[in-house]
Amino acid sequence: MAKGASISGFPEWLPSERVVEQRVIDTLRKVFELNGFIGIETRAVETGASLLKKGETSKEIYLLSRLQEVGHESDTPIEERLGLHFDLTVPLSRYVVEHSGALAFPFKRWQIQKVWRGERPQEGRFREFVQADIDVIGAGDLPDHYEVELPLVMVSALEELRAYGLPKATVHANNRKLSEGFYRGLGLTDVEGVLREIDKLDKIGADEVARLLTETCGATEAQARACLELAELTASDGAELAAKFDALCESHGIAKDSEAYTLARQGLDTLAMIVDEAAAIRPGSVIADLKIARGLDYYTGSVYETFLDGAASLGSICSGGRYDNLASQGNRKYPGVGLSIGLSRLVSYMLHAAGAHANRVSPAAVLVAVWNEEDRPAANRIANQLRARGIATDVAPTAAKLGKQIKYADKLGIPYVWFPATAAEGAEGAEPAGDEVKNIVTGEQVAADCTSWEPDTVVAQQTVEI
Amino acid sequence: MAKGASISGFPEWLPSERVVEQRVIDTLRKVFELNGFIGIETRAVETGASLLKKGETSKEIYLLSRLQEVGHESDTPIEERLGLHFDLTVPLSRYVVEHSGALAFPFKRWQIQKVWRGERPQEGRFREFVQADIDVIGAGDLPDHYEVELPLVMVSALEELRAYGLPKATVHANNRKLSEGFYRGLGLTDVEGVLREIDKLDKIGADEVARLLTETCGATEAQARACLELAELTASDGAELAAKFDALCESHGIAKDSEAYTLARQGLDTLAMIVDEAAAIRPGSVIADLKIARGLDYYTGSVYETFLDGAASLGSICSGGRYDNLASQGNRKYPGVGLSIGLSRLVSYMLHAAGAHANRVSPAAVLVAVWNEEDRPAANRIANQLRARGIATDVAPTAAKLGKQIKYADKLGIPYVWFPATAAEGAEGAEPAGDEVKNIVTGEQVAADCTSWEPDTVVAQQTVEI
Repeated sequence: MAKGASISGFPEWLPSERVVEQRVIDTLRKVFELNGFIGIETRAVETGASLLKKGETSKEIYLLSRLQEVGHESDTPIEERLGLHFDLTVPLSRYVVEHSGALAFPFKRWQIQKVWRGERPQEGRFREFVQADIDVIGAGDLPDHYEVELPLVMVSALEELRAYGLPKATVHANNRKLSEGFYRGLGLTDVEGVLREIDKLDKIGADEVARLLTETCGATEAQARACLELAELTASDGAELAAKFDALCESHGIAKDSEAYTLARQGLDTLAMIVDEAAAIRPGSVIADLKIARGLDYYTGSVYETFLDGAASLGSICSGGRYDNLASQGNRKYPGVGLSIGLSRLVSYMLHAAGAHANRVSPAAVLVAVWNEEDRPAANRIANQLRARGIATDVAPTAAKLGKQIKYADKLGIPYVWFPATAAEGAEGAEPAGDEVKNIVTGEQVAADCTSWEPDTVVAQQTVEI
Repeated sequence: MAKGASISGFPEWLPSERVVEQRVIDTLRKVFELNGFIGIETRAVETGASLLKKGETSKEIYLLSRLQEVGHESDTPIEERLGLHFDLTVPLSRYVVEHSGALAFPFKRWQIQKVWRGERPQEGRFREFVQADIDVIGAGDLPDHYEVELPLVMVSALEELRAYGLPKATVHANNRKLSEGFYRGLGLTDVEGVLREIDKLDKIGADEVARLLTETCGATEAQARACLELAELTASDGAELAAKFDALCESHGIAKDSEAYTLARQGLDTLAMIVDEAAAIRPGSVIADLKIARGLDYYTGSVYETFLDGAASLGSICSGGRYDNLASQGNRKYPGVGLSIGLSRLVSYMLHAAGAHANRVSPAAVLVAVWNEEDRPAANRIANQLRARGIATDVAPTAAKLGKQIKYADKLGIPYVWFPATAAEGAEGAEPAGDEVKNIVTGEQVAADCTSWEPDTVVAQQTVEI
């Protein structure tokens, strides 16, 4: 990002970096729409009541106050105040309930928007960033095939970004019911607590997690070790997953006819379906990884995290899961499945570790030179002719020396400088000449007509290279 | 917008309405980039000090506080608190100064982003909305030809929106120096005050403005009437403008050799150039209209407002001007010219008065039917084949009765339903058949191969119609 962002945690891109971010956004949108997802944008604010209802981030909210209210903010209860949304899932749930009569269900939507986290300023933590989400929300029920399809849409979107240097992405899936059933089978009851500690595994390591499980979740040393054993379990197909899990249950005395096992088996069957069907469609894209816990408490079934090859330290770049109880209206529930890409962090990685960069700063392919200020109207006419044919064109800011105009084009990365006929005449002092255009990278200069000339396709468009 | 937005002033579009907004954004971006403008996005927050520096809206700011700070907000002086930006010009000025070393000047940028106004809730006032801005910022100086070119870029962008029902737009231009010179020539000294009252002309009428000019700006009845006479002056070319203005000066005893006239004449010459050059490039797009005042106090030269034919009550949809003193760094100034479209209000007008609407809610052109859940993998393969060829495709959510699946497609406006071969077999109970695709609008059903079939170009893409 732009060096020395003047407010910590609020990143801002330089123009050339923004080209990469914009390209990532455009690419994701294209893939989401190819898959039939409908784009929405929700307002940036929700009520405090809505923001505080769910989610681990509930403590990291920015509340708003009007300038006139300064000093009297506390007159309004927090629940009635407005705050900036901290994710796009809570706003979606509210939107779906509010507009349920106008939507067709299941409602598949994409949404790419900024979110805010009212954290203390810390090195490397964003307080404002962009998320790119897809979710599908059912009215009443939601078929489980979406738990296979949504991560695969994300995989195909991330696959498109490999052209811009992104390494291969693999979705690691787990299922809350599987974990919960296993923990209950062990005799543990604080399921949310165990999940919360297991979620810290990559950060603090197994020994520390074991200590926390015994100290805060009422686990014995043996129970804690069993939880860690489960977290070590991975599998790339359903049969392997079932075999490994059953062996683990047996070694910890969880009977197959127990309620706990039945619950776990429900989760396992869904997870097995996910990895098997994903393998059929896109081999190697989704694995079962039973350490995936997700801190957020609204997930009720599948949970996903996504890791890039060779970028373990980046952590998950795309996470989500199934949530059956986030939204409801009277007796009707709106279960959902969704995943969210942390887009700002992803773009930061692409720029700084993967070498993605804009081929030029300016969208213009051509800079029309201006020999004298009196020639500017003629230069503008040429520019408008080119633009009418879809060729992005700029006009020199001043009738400076040609060298200075070419330098301006060069600084913006504009590959062509156009010399209008009058300018060419002036330069040559010779008989009437036609327009000419120079590729300032190759130095090639040719006669050109603004009603028919085409730039070399390689440099015609602003794009992202690696 | 979606009826009954649950928080007053924070509009939210239904999916079909969002299609129109997205199309407007895409169209503006395309035109801005064709003209060589560079896209940036600034963070949503600025410091209180930066937000309070300039502009009439300085009283309508949302300040942020972290949840943990509730009750202690006032410990931090307002200048050091963070607030949401109320426009995109103040953030641009800050961005340019902060990153001046990394930018090429003149810096032409486009920016389409949400802004927030911390107003009291009022009927019809947006507290969150999208602005679409173009500005050019010079380092040290900025040629005045940009004062012609920027409004013309906006006109050509608005012209593109006429395909979606927008009426013809006309830019009304004025110049602060012209107004100031004239007021000073009359003997008035509170120039900002006079501009502020003149800005209310369309809202409260001439008599009320005259009253305010005498009561709050120290004007005599005659001076007030002279100000109103100036505000009535319009012209479509430079010669007409100069003739009318000189006649007015003469009738009010403003001598041509006075300092005041010299200042006014500077402004008049720029304004005359603008209308004449605009007339040469795009006749009828820009007129001189001397009642245009613009409330914001940072404008120093040209000011613009833009009105749609037959939509006077909508007011200006695109406003801006030249500002020479908004940004500086040491002795170096960064003068700018820019215009801003109030995009949310424009989209609201297009939807509700101009009849713009999406041809369908879903981006998908095809819904692949699912006869049995066992056929879903085959349906997914067909969908992926179509997507790989750029055809946006959805798959039926459940293996419901075909009628229900077609109804789902119909509700989303998806024009084609694809019947995979296995489904066709099941339906017919006959010999092996190939895939078929049905246009559910025309009822036409044909044999189709997902590796070669193309939708009718008329319905292939989601688009906006009138």
